[in-house]
Amino acid sequence: MSLLEKTVKEIYPQDASSREKAKTRLDNLAIPHWALGDLMDLALDIAGMTGTVKPSVKKKAILTMAGDHGVVAENVSKYPSEVTPQMVYNFVAGGAGINALSKQAGANIFVVDMGVAADLKDLADAGKIINKKVGLGTGNIAKGPAMSRTMAVRALESGIDIANELSAEYDIFGTGDMGIGNTTPSTAIAAVCTGEPLEALTGRGTGLNDDQLVHKTNVIKQALEINKPDPKDGVDILAKVGGFEIGGLAGLILGAAANRKPIVVDGFISTAAALIAYTIEPFVRDYLIFSHKSVEPGHKAMQLKLGCEKPLLDLNFRLGEGTGAAVAMNLVEGAVAILTEVATFEEAAVAEADK
Amino acid sequence: MSLLEKTVKEIYPQDASSREKAKTRLDNLAIPHWALGDLMDLALDIAGMTGTVKPSVKKKAILTMAGDHGVVAENVSKYPSEVTPQMVYNFVAGGAGINALSKQAGANIFVVDMGVAADLKDLADAGKIINKKVGLGTGNIAKGPAMSRTMAVRALESGIDIANELSAEYDIFGTGDMGIGNTTPSTAIAAVCTGEPLEALTGRGTGLNDDQLVHKTNVIKQALEINKPDPKDGVDILAKVGGFEIGGLAGLILGAAANRKPIVVDGFISTAAALIAYTIEPFVRDYLIFSHKSVEPGHKAMQLKLGCEKPLLDLNFRLGEGTGAAVAMNLVEGAVAILTEVATFEEAAVAEADK
Repeated sequence: MSLLEKTVKEIYPQDASSREKAKTRLDNLAIPHWALGDLMDLALDIAGMTGTVKPSVKKKAILTMAGDHGVVAENVSKYPSEVTPQMVYNFVAGGAGINALSKQAGANIFVVDMGVAADLKDLADAGKIINKKVGLGTGNIAKGPAMSRTMAVRALESGIDIANELSAEYDIFGTGDMGIGNTTPSTAIAAVCTGEPLEALTGRGTGLNDDQLVHKTNVIKQALEINKPDPKDGVDILAKVGGFEIGGLAGLILGAAANRKPIVVDGFISTAAALIAYTIEPFVRDYLIFSHKSVEPGHKAMQLKLGCEKPLLDLNFRLGEGTGAAVAMNLVEGAVAILTEVATFEEAAVAEADK
Repeated sequence: MSLLEKTVKEIYPQDASSREKAKTRLDNLAIPHWALGDLMDLALDIAGMTGTVKPSVKKKAILTMAGDHGVVAENVSKYPSEVTPQMVYNFVAGGAGINALSKQAGANIFVVDMGVAADLKDLADAGKIINKKVGLGTGNIAKGPAMSRTMAVRALESGIDIANELSAEYDIFGTGDMGIGNTTPSTAIAAVCTGEPLEALTGRGTGLNDDQLVHKTNVIKQALEINKPDPKDGVDILAKVGGFEIGGLAGLILGAAANRKPIVVDGFISTAAALIAYTIEPFVRDYLIFSHKSVEPGHKAMQLKLGCEKPLLDLNFRLGEGTGAAVAMNLVEGAVAILTEVATFEEAAVAEADK
């Protein structure tokens, strides 16, 4: 049995008994009933995911996975592919958005080369990034598949490996991405998985104008027509119209779920990865925490497909890197604090409401 | 000149030059333009408030001010007034929602007795709360004024005193409240300051049913008819239909603004306090950060009146205590990290977008 098959078999729904126990406690906190709203809902989920009413989310890991995209040749991004490795160096130097925001949240960042089109061996040898390179950028999906099925499985299993290794030390994972051009494959994945029309899903990425947006939509349409991904087969979708970092993140999500660890999902690209993971094994849904609503118009449809009507934050983010996940880690910590630190009416000797 | 008058004269608009400098830096960060959206807007505000492009928000104080309300005699709350001192003891013991959430945010809590209808001298003598008691609960606003004008000024100046004392050590303030019945005076303040109809502003507080909600609306209507607060006079509104903790918080806001410190405004009651402060001196607006959208229906109209279309969070909170402000402190810290820690394109040697 492959690592992917083995991992999928280890993904179970949330633990109903821990959810129940958490609900009983939260129902009796010395506050008006459920007055800390969404963070109390989240606390239930975390109890269900971790199988305990005293979960810890102290040790936080954000995985920022990087890869390049052949489809950049079609002029779908305002930035050149060279920016992908440049940003990897920026992550390592500590100067990126995700560095500032994960430091604020008390999370460690791990930068993963899943398929950057540049030699990053120096960084990997120095232990500054994790080398899981599947290839030097994907194929151009407007002309053919992004990668072979074998490469797709390798990308997924790389993410699973990382989840398995880090699960010994970390309580919770956040997803992040870097890859110039990657809203294009992510939109293609959104179209396949949600069935929504491309016009409603395609966005401006890093800042396209109206003409460029129409062009990008046409490129994605062509990618779907040429590749015909099978909506029931997550590995096929990833291979045909995905990306190496998207595969790595989907694997991370599957691996984390198998380890009963909560996963804080970042923005548009991370949610595309979650859709791949969900198509492979729907129970992963039970381990996902949706950090924020991205500016990309297709994000909402993707979150709805995954059962999320309202993510934790809505801050007009459109950066990726894991920045939304990092900010949301604070709220997750707050939810756990409500569950584990707030006293009940009885404990606090506070009078209850008139019934 | 009184402390109140002196304080009001020291409140200036945000520093335009620091805002400009912050904008130039943020415009050039090595991310797609303004891709961290609302937190970048917030970073501009903090630079303008503090008058520096390298602000610190490390030292955070949350002031949870408590007071009782004579209008509870009209059956406007599901909880008895005894819960106010019980909750003060719970704050001191560390078992309340605000304890858990301010610990998560790295903020210190100061509990202030502004007018609890119980003897809390033991706690004050032990240094566990700040004693600024103006009275043993307000008068019943359905029958007459909440307090005299002298008491209103005393409540405001108590808040100013606290802001002045803590400004030496703290970078940023959060507001919080505890007072059974205090959505009733807050709704009255909202009606006076926004001009919106009471039916649209009055909410269920800690959990009223439909009949109780109608009754509460009628009580507030009566309070406004009997007291006729002057919408142009913040001290008059506070005296006629306010509360001691609301006055303390309004004073804190005025005092913090005079010290150029950002103030993170919690929910419904804190926003009523902000409206009092704003009516006294409109420039306080420049120092307010709106933490969240409360479940109370009138909250939105109050925030709009203060120029806030979209607060930072929307988590279905309806607790008060400063809980929304505490959670939002994390986002404020994130905004400052973006301004002070993220590299520009030039610093990071990252290629810019095609123009």
